[in-house]
Amino acid sequence: MAQNVGGGSLLIAWQLKDKNVLIVGGGEVASQRIESILTTDAHITVLAPANGLHHRVKEFIDLYPTRITYYDRRFSGPDELRDMNMVLTALDDVDRSREICEMCGKDKVPVNAADIPDLCDFYFGAQIRDGPLQIMISTNGNGPRMAALMKKKVLSALSGREGEAIEKVGGLRARLKERAPGVGGALGRKRMKWMSEVCNVWEVEDLTQLDDALIAKLLDEGWDKDCVPTLDQLKGQPRPRSQKESSESYAWLLATGSFTLGAICATVIFLSRPR
Amino acid sequence: MAQNVGGGSLLIAWQLKDKNVLIVGGGEVASQRIESILTTDAHITVLAPANGLHHRVKEFIDLYPTRITYYDRRFSGPDELRDMNMVLTALDDVDRSREICEMCGKDKVPVNAADIPDLCDFYFGAQIRDGPLQIMISTNGNGPRMAALMKKKVLSALSGREGEAIEKVGGLRARLKERAPGVGGALGRKRMKWMSEVCNVWEVEDLTQLDDALIAKLLDEGWDKDCVPTLDQLKGQPRPRSQKESSESYAWLLATGSFTLGAICATVIFLSRPR
Repeated sequence: MAQNVGGGSLLIAWQLKDKNVLIVGGGEVASQRIESILTTDAHITVLAPANGLHHRVKEFIDLYPTRITYYDRRFSGPDELRDMNMVLTALDDVDRSREICEMCGKDKVPVNAADIPDLCDFYFGAQIRDGPLQIMISTNGNGPRMAALMKKKVLSALSGREGEAIEKVGGLRARLKERAPGVGGALGRKRMKWMSEVCNVWEVEDLTQLDDALIAKLLDEGWDKDCVPTLDQLKGQPRPRSQKESSESYAWLLATGSFTLGAICATVIFLSRPR
Repeated sequence: MAQNVGGGSLLIAWQLKDKNVLIVGGGEVASQRIESILTTDAHITVLAPANGLHHRVKEFIDLYPTRITYYDRRFSGPDELRDMNMVLTALDDVDRSREICEMCGKDKVPVNAADIPDLCDFYFGAQIRDGPLQIMISTNGNGPRMAALMKKKVLSALSGREGEAIEKVGGLRARLKERAPGVGGALGRKRMKWMSEVCNVWEVEDLTQLDDALIAKLLDEGWDKDCVPTLDQLKGQPRPRSQKESSESYAWLLATGSFTLGAICATVIFLSRPR
């Protein structure tokens, strides 16, 4: 318990639906900030002189006209913060960034200033997104390179179908609630327990196959009978061989093949001997 | 680019050093909230009647007397929010939670209300921590069970030495800055590029071995000579065979062994024939 206490950040999923985010600056970092905020449903305002816009910032402004409002000018003062729920500065001018952060502090508007960690209410990190699944990796200021390395490691553990699996499980939960309606209580706990068991027993790949017909079958054969059948049991099919099994049978094939070949060679040599 | 736009949260690393966090409630969820905030350096205030305290909440209060201030009473009104930088409610009383959230909204204090997602400025998610490395997994409200499953997957990709590696890389960066001091400019870019290459070339396990002597050697043989030697080059050792190489040599051994055995068997049979 004492381990990993103190010294860390609080990693959270900030909600920005129908909120306003101000991005001050139009360079490469600003383009990364725009990309981050586009993940959410926030409305984005970008303040930056047109002559310094990074090509990716221009692309985003063109691609998402309903999501981004762009003003070809610099940050003018505290009035810019009106109705803003979050501010991100991406300026080369550290002093100006510092001033904007101070204004945000007075107005209690959460702010991130690129490259000035001591002024930030929050940091960004390496991000992974697959539909409803979002993963963030932070090294707590120990450089983006190590965060990128960790992201590669995390990605190697994912098949890329996890988001789909999570959506399908959401569908299963909705259908279960139709079949066994009601909020909380013993039934609520039983539903939760059964859903947990499904998620434990079924692999991610299995979960992605949960279409309407299979969901109905799982509820009939599982929920109604108070058990959790596997995908193969539902489909009445034996499980395909695992990788370990295939590699074992490959070794067996190789050994018997080589043995036979050796025997044949020796036989040919003996038979072709002059007698 | 259009993929994964909208519908998501903004995953961020919130900074709580020297900030005040108020936790309203003392049940099991409150104990989880205390645990989350203990990760940071925030000061925690807990408001909850003593007769309803979860045993883990009691444990935390006893274990961390300098980090947690506990009051044996309920939330009394807006004055409780004075000097608070974040509020977490963990109450069974949904109406009271809603009132507290409204007060927080007026005061612009970020708030999370357990089990009332529409009132939350932010959500929690499954967390992994290994020293400076922090990872958060959010399923955007699709249930903690899938988040736990994803956490297991992510953990399977980590050796548990990543935090140590990140710390060692931090040490290397600090020593490099001593050897090649200065902020920004061409030297700054060169330093950043060299550090990136080290992180690309060296495995996590290699990076954990970076003690003072090895850091000095890496700077002498690498930075000073404008290259990035591998750990084995620095140590003057050949690299151990990779798993692929060993599995290839295993197959070769198996095939030749079986071939020889087959040949021997056939020879023995031929030689033992009556002539």
